[in-house]
Amino acid sequence: MVKAKNPLVHQITNYVTVNDCANIVLALGGSPVMADDESEVEEMVSIASALVINIGTLNARTIKSMLAAGKKANQLGIPVILDPVGAGATALRTGTTEKILAEIQLSVLRGNRSEIKTIAGFATKTRGVDSVDDIPDAGIGEGAEIAGVLADKLHCVVAITGKQDIISDGVRTGFIDNGHQILSKVTGTGCMATALIGCYAGVTDDHFLSATVGIMTMGLAGEKAWAEVGSSAGIGSFKVALFDWIFKMTPEDLAQGGKFHEA
Amino acid sequence: MVKAKNPLVHQITNYVTVNDCANIVLALGGSPVMADDESEVEEMVSIASALVINIGTLNARTIKSMLAAGKKANQLGIPVILDPVGAGATALRTGTTEKILAEIQLSVLRGNRSEIKTIAGFATKTRGVDSVDDIPDAGIGEGAEIAGVLADKLHCVVAITGKQDIISDGVRTGFIDNGHQILSKVTGTGCMATALIGCYAGVTDDHFLSATVGIMTMGLAGEKAWAEVGSSAGIGSFKVALFDWIFKMTPEDLAQGGKFHEA
Amino acid sequence: MVKAKNPLVHQITNYVTVNDCANIVLALGGSPVMADDESEVEEMVSIASALVINIGTLNARTIKSMLAAGKKANQLGIPVILDPVGAGATALRTGTTEKILAEIQLSVLRGNRSEIKTIAGFATKTRGVDSVDDIPDAGIGEGAEIAGVLADKLHCVVAITGKQDIISDGVRTGFIDNGHQILSKVTGTGCMATALIGCYAGVTDDHFLSATVGIMTMGLAGEKAWAEVGSSAGIGSFKVALFDWIFKMTPEDLAQGGKFHEA
Repeated sequence: MVKAKNPLVHQITNYVTVNDCANIVLALGGSPVMADDESEVEEMVSIASALVINIGTLNARTIKSMLAAGKKANQLGIPVILDPVGAGATALRTGTTEKILAEIQLSVLRGNRSEIKTIAGFATKTRGVDSVDDIPDAGIGEGAEIAGVLADKLHCVVAITGKQDIISDGVRTGFIDNGHQILSKVTGTGCMATALIGCYAGVTDDHFLSATVGIMTMGLAGEKAWAEVGSSAGIGSFKVALFDWIFKMTPEDLAQGGKFHEA
Repeated sequence: MVKAKNPLVHQITNYVTVNDCANIVLALGGSPVMADDESEVEEMVSIASALVINIGTLNARTIKSMLAAGKKANQLGIPVILDPVGAGATALRTGTTEKILAEIQLSVLRGNRSEIKTIAGFATKTRGVDSVDDIPDAGIGEGAEIAGVLADKLHCVVAITGKQDIISDGVRTGFIDNGHQILSKVTGTGCMATALIGCYAGVTDDHFLSATVGIMTMGLAGEKAWAEVGSSAGIGSFKVALFDWIFKMTPEDLAQGGKFHEA
Repeated sequence: MVKAKNPLVHQITNYVTVNDCANIVLALGGSPVMADDESEVEEMVSIASALVINIGTLNARTIKSMLAAGKKANQLGIPVILDPVGAGATALRTGTTEKILAEIQLSVLRGNRSEIKTIAGFATKTRGVDSVDDIPDAGIGEGAEIAGVLADKLHCVVAITGKQDIISDGVRTGFIDNGHQILSKVTGTGCMATALIGCYAGVTDDHFLSATVGIMTMGLAGEKAWAEVGSSAGIGSFKVALFDWIFKMTPEDLAQGGKFHEA
């Protein structure tokens, strides 16, 4: 569905993985555009089908651009996807995530377990609702509960990626068992998954679907790529094959290889 | 000719494709240097053989650096090549392109059809000459006319890349039929073509030649790379082969595989 | 030893090679984190095992961050590795390097011959000690002497990489004969070597060892990668194989393939 509609995905992202985030959007059939000057982001997002905000190398200048672009996207009904890279690691990252969540309505929030737990912590505090902090850190059950509570609070889809991925919109909760450990040895596979969600969010209003299919596409491509290069390969070959598989992935591949179930 | 002279190519470029723009210069036999702080760009460009300005992720800080470096290059007779990424998409990009063209004498301007059309529009307006805007958007004839008129106005070589590439210096007009559709599925192939033009511009004063050979090198490498990896490959393998072919390209390859004709 | 301890390596580096510097750290078994906003670098470096500063695309904003992060690392006893990219090419790069050396105690300084010679020049001047500038530029003997004198002055390990690599802590001097000419045709292999030193520096206090093994790992991986892809390949295939070999490198490979001797 992405190839047919060729969504323009505006990304305000980090300079570590930005090339990969552009190529993964192209591989899936979208068109990437990166623009982060405060004076042009509102205009750029206005012609986009989705906005992806990634705080991986945020700075004072780009934080303003993220907020301006996000607000404009909200006004225009353009979906906003946030990747809160490193939330919890520094006050700047945690505080910026908090500010974005307070000022912008997201369609999808995707992070790893510790990022989402950090957000769940302050989301409860700053929004004055029941804390989820006392839920023990004890496996999938906890992840699903955090995702669900947070999705409900933020009125958006929350995705926690890891060994098993969890997606919740506050009502439905889905689990994905695709992927391979080697994905964690290539920088930016999380950022790229978020970029893929941005592509799908540009062509459907069902963001539980956007998040699920985006994450599944990444995981399944990782499986296929690793199978292709073989266990004696390294991350160089694997990354090449990963991009090949994103490019070649068909709806049939996803239907056959996707490992999804709902709670 | 690049390998023998090893030109230093100073690039003030975007953070999306900068690694590829550095590697493509190395592959061709040049030496890349990226420097974008206003306080050092004049000094850096002074030791360079060519300056490439690419506005792909411009911001208020780097725009100043682009202007300072370009003016210094002009003073020293160092060729300046501009890639007006996204001109027409936002006022910042269009306005910055306009400012660069007003203050800096280019050797080569390379863009896609919509970027060059945007520039042709304001170049006619801001320079008070006959508009080319009323030329119908109807194929190559129009492209060649825009390139020629614009080259004449800007006193530089204008190259429009696309399915068929058009190069004009206002007197001569050349067409290149190399390339492959898959090139549009890898981010930065336009930026890389501009970087290659920068390499050639560093070793010859004939910039109709620089632009032509730079674009032809990219197109022919794309053809050869796609032929090598085969149609069942994806953009990961293709990009690897593309760099291999730029690295391996010989003058004989260009002479045999180049598809060039003049109007 | 890196894989077992998984050191977090904080890098304030350039946007040209940053993706490769992140992936090379992952390939070796470390965890990269890039953060360069002045308001968060002290907090980020506090949780890191090593700090790598690379001035490849320095600007007024990031220079402040480099200094703040370096001072904090010094306070906490976290090793700091500097890659003075382009010292000698512009006053900004030379002056920033001088400032960093004056304010921050390094564990390892790694540069190419001309960068280190530049530093040796002003280090003698600014620190009021005997000049090494009158040593003739005549081969390895000179390199070893500069490295030794500079290591002594700066109280850190100094590594000069080139055809033969030289490492000195002021007392011991080592030479490495690994590597392949093709490494100079891929952008960032110097930056990546510095990143590898950062990984090793995060797991041992012997920084003569960190520098030696970091540089040897890069050189040996280069040899193995080039042998694997064959001389008819280009830099695309070579770079892929280089990452594969960093990922696959074992202590046994280093013991068998490392070409190291002491003066």
